[in-house]
Amino acid sequence: MSITICEVGPRDGLQNEKTLLSADAKVELIRRSVAGGVRRIEATAFVHPGRVPQMADAEEVMARVPRDKGVAYIGLVLNRRGFERAARAGVDEVNMVVLATDTFGERNQGMTVDAGLRAWEEIAAAAHAAGIRPSLTVSAAFGCPFEGEVGVDRVRAIARRAVAAGPAEIALADTIGVGVPTQVAELVAAVRDIAPGVPLRCHFHNTRNTGYANAVAAVDAGVETLDASAGGIGGCPFAPAATGNIATEDLVFLLERMGVPTGVDLAATASTGRWIGGRLGVEVPALLGRAGPFPG
Amino acid sequence: MSITICEVGPRDGLQNEKTLLSADAKVELIRRSVAGGVRRIEATAFVHPGRVPQMADAEEVMARVPRDKGVAYIGLVLNRRGFERAARAGVDEVNMVVLATDTFGERNQGMTVDAGLRAWEEIAAAAHAAGIRPSLTVSAAFGCPFEGEVGVDRVRAIARRAVAAGPAEIALADTIGVGVPTQVAELVAAVRDIAPGVPLRCHFHNTRNTGYANAVAAVDAGVETLDASAGGIGGCPFAPAATGNIATEDLVFLLERMGVPTGVDLAATASTGRWIGGRLGVEVPALLGRAGPFPG
Repeated sequence: MSITICEVGPRDGLQNEKTLLSADAKVELIRRSVAGGVRRIEATAFVHPGRVPQMADAEEVMARVPRDKGVAYIGLVLNRRGFERAARAGVDEVNMVVLATDTFGERNQGMTVDAGLRAWEEIAAAAHAAGIRPSLTVSAAFGCPFEGEVGVDRVRAIARRAVAAGPAEIALADTIGVGVPTQVAELVAAVRDIAPGVPLRCHFHNTRNTGYANAVAAVDAGVETLDASAGGIGGCPFAPAATGNIATEDLVFLLERMGVPTGVDLAATASTGRWIGGRLGVEVPALLGRAGPFPG
Repeated sequence: MSITICEVGPRDGLQNEKTLLSADAKVELIRRSVAGGVRRIEATAFVHPGRVPQMADAEEVMARVPRDKGVAYIGLVLNRRGFERAARAGVDEVNMVVLATDTFGERNQGMTVDAGLRAWEEIAAAAHAAGIRPSLTVSAAFGCPFEGEVGVDRVRAIARRAVAAGPAEIALADTIGVGVPTQVAELVAAVRDIAPGVPLRCHFHNTRNTGYANAVAAVDAGVETLDASAGGIGGCPFAPAATGNIATEDLVFLLERMGVPTGVDLAATASTGRWIGGRLGVEVPALLGRAGPFPG
C-alpha cells in the first residue's frame, strides 16, 4: 500500500493566506515540491480574479510549471468558463468543488448544492470531451460553519448524483477542520458504496488538531490520495487564528514512519515548508521544521 | 467504552515550561481541571528541588488540592526518598519513570534502565505496604533522542521485569513525540501480552503532529487512560521550539466527537487552557481555544 500526496499549497494554501505572492514565487513553490518528489499538484484556480486575487495569475503559473517530471496538475474550476480557461492553460485535471450545504455554497460560490451539481455535470462532460480528468470535491463534508452537522446522508446524496457524470475521482473535504476518524471511516464507506471503483481522495485541515488522525483513518479506509500543503499553510477563513491544511512534511513523516510509502522526500518537503513560511512571513503550522526528523 | 483523561499539566506540563509558577497558580490549575470534570491528575513530582525547581513546592501543592471530588492525585517519584515524601503528602498514586534506554536514563535521572527498575521495585514494594497505588511509566518507549530507535523488544523486556513488582498500571510514553499509530498498536499489544489485566495508560507529545493520531490508536487498542495537559503546555527539552503534551481540550473534542465519553467538559477545559497560557505568557499549542468548538 502506498499513498499519493496531492500538494495543495499553491491553491488551497495560498488562497487562504493574506500575503499575495508573485507568480515567480508560486512557480518556485511548485518546482520545489516537484523536486521533493510530489507528482500531483493543485496548481491554481481558474476563478474570477476579482473574487480571488491570489489566483489572478492562473494562466501564467500554469504556463511555467515543470512539465518533464510526469506531474499531474490540477486546476480548480467552478463553471464552464473556468473549465475553458483551465483547458487552454493545459491542466491535466480539473477539480470542481460542491459545498455540502446550500448556505455555505451560496456564501462561498453563489451556488446551492443543486446548482453546484449542475455545474459539475457540465464541467465533467466538457472535460471528458477534451480528454481532461474531471474530479469532484465535496467540501464541508464533515461539518458546515453555517448549518452545523452535515451527516452522511447529505454526502451520500451528492455523491449519488455526481457519480453519473463519471468522476475520475471523488474527494471528501473537511474544509473547516471539525472531522474525526470515525466520520472519515463512515463517509468513505458511504461514498465507496455509491461509487465503487472510483478513486477517493481526502482533504483535511488541522484546525482543531484532528487532521492527522483523520489522515490515518483515511489510509486505514483505503483512500488512495491525501491532500496536504507545504508547511501546512492555508488557515481557515471562518476561524482567523486557525491553522491550515495538514502539512506535507508532517504527513510524510507520519506515513513513512508507519511504513506507508509516499514517494516524497522528508528533508526536501520540510525545507519547502520553511521556505514558503519565509515568503509569506509566517511561522508555518508544520511541526517537523521546528522539531527535526527522527531518527536524526 | 470510555476514556479516563489524566491531566498532567501541573507536573509534566509545567516542568517543561520556563516560567516558574507559584503554588497558588498550580493549585488554581488543579482546581480548574477538577471543576471541568477531570478526576485523575499528575499533581507534582517529589524530586530534588535543585534539579527541578518548578516542583520545589510539591508538599504545599498537595496540601492544598481539592479533596472532596473523588480525584486521584499522582505524585511522580524516582526513589525511596521521593516515595516517602509523596506518601507523607497524601498522594493517591505514585508514578515511577524508567527511561527505555541507558543513555537517556543516565542523562535524565542518573540511572541506567537496570537501576531505574531496581528503584521501581523498591518504590512499588513500599507503596503496596502503604496502601498507595504504584504505577510505572516507560519513557521514550517510542524513540530516544540519544540512541534513536527503541524497538518493541526493549519495551517488552522492561515491562516483563516491571510486572513482577505489581504495577497498578503501566504507561507507555512518547516523551519526544516521534511515535506513530502502528507503533502504538504494536507496543500496547506487546505490553498487554506480558502484563495481562494490568491497566494501560499512554502519554503522547504532539512534537511532530502525530500525538492525536496516536491517541486514537491507543483508544482503538483498548488503552484505558490517556495523559494530556491543559492547553498542551509542556514543550520538549530536546527540541526547544517544539510543542508539548497533547492538549486536554483538543483530546476531549476529538474523543467526544468520536462518541468516546471522557467525563470532561469541553468549554471548561478550553477555558483552563487559555488561562494557563495567560499565566505562562505563551500562546498554547492547543487549537480549540483558537478555532472554537463545533457545532458552535
